[in-house]
Amino acid sequence: MEMLFKYNWMVREEWYRWCEEVEEAELLKKRTGGMGGILHTLFHNADVEWSWIRILQGKPDFMERFESYNSLERVRELDASFRLEVQQFVEKWDNDMENKLLHLPEEDGSVTVFTWGEVMRHIIAHEIHHIGQLSVWSRELGLKPVSANLIGRGLGSHHSKK
Amino acid sequence: MEMLFKYNWMVREEWYRWCEEVEEAELLKKRTGGMGGILHTLFHNADVEWSWIRILQGKPDFMERFESYNSLERVRELDASFRLEVQQFVEKWDNDMENKLLHLPEEDGSVTVFTWGEVMRHIIAHEIHHIGQLSVWSRELGLKPVSANLIGRGLGSHHSKK
Repeated sequence: MEMLFKYNWMVREEWYRWCEEVEEAELLKKRTGGMGGILHTLFHNADVEWSWIRILQGKPDFMERFESYNSLERVRELDASFRLEVQQFVEKWDNDMENKLLHLPEEDGSVTVFTWGEVMRHIIAHEIHHIGQLSVWSRELGLKPVSANLIGRGLGSHHSKK
Repeated sequence: MEMLFKYNWMVREEWYRWCEEVEEAELLKKRTGGMGGILHTLFHNADVEWSWIRILQGKPDFMERFESYNSLERVRELDASFRLEVQQFVEKWDNDMENKLLHLPEEDGSVTVFTWGEVMRHIIAHEIHHIGQLSVWSRELGLKPVSANLIGRGLGSHHSKK
């Protein structure tokens, strides 16, 4: 589980660095698909990851509004403020938590039940999906996107070259 | 591990169905980013998944050329022909395989070493990333993309509504 979270954090950090080289107007520009913009998507990824981890822990969540975080610096600060809690949760993950149940009340009064393992993989897939959208917008800007490769990042327990 | 592969197969099947409603010219049209087209991306996902599973098993791989599979029907047939082998491999996955090593000779004569666990997650992330690209192209066509949600697909070991 941990490897895919680490992968997402590495890729996200590389996108922040990619953003440093791009004019803020382009980062904020309305685009087709996903969250409709580059910075909004990065904000959304950090927000959704943290929100689900809060929900699993039974802690209060709040809906962040992108309008309050519409600069690269503010998104990075928000992400950093969320990261510690997310990381601690991910690091203490073990297989016994896989089938714990989350009961989520819906607006219509029904209750949806998810396993914790399902929620954790939802968080992972959610971010990778949105990063795929960034890669298209990057090409539309004529820029090389951040590599999506998971191999070659030293995430396995071995020396990567010999 | 298995849940994320199953997620990708479900999403891929839904994209094939999405393709049924779209003119073939649009599926083949050159687009910006990723593999440069909708059907080419779906072909690529099936091909890359199968190729890595072959490599892990030490079985010969061959590079498929999209030009030989440039219709929805042919991509689906190819995918189906790969699926059984991939599925068998994924179903027999256990934690002992996580740190097995794959030695991959590079063109410059060096050897890159990956853990099997790293390769499996690379396969998973690779597909989700490309599906994110499809979602942007779908919106550009004015069409609703397939949902990327992992939750709500009944992939956890529980009843999803009560």
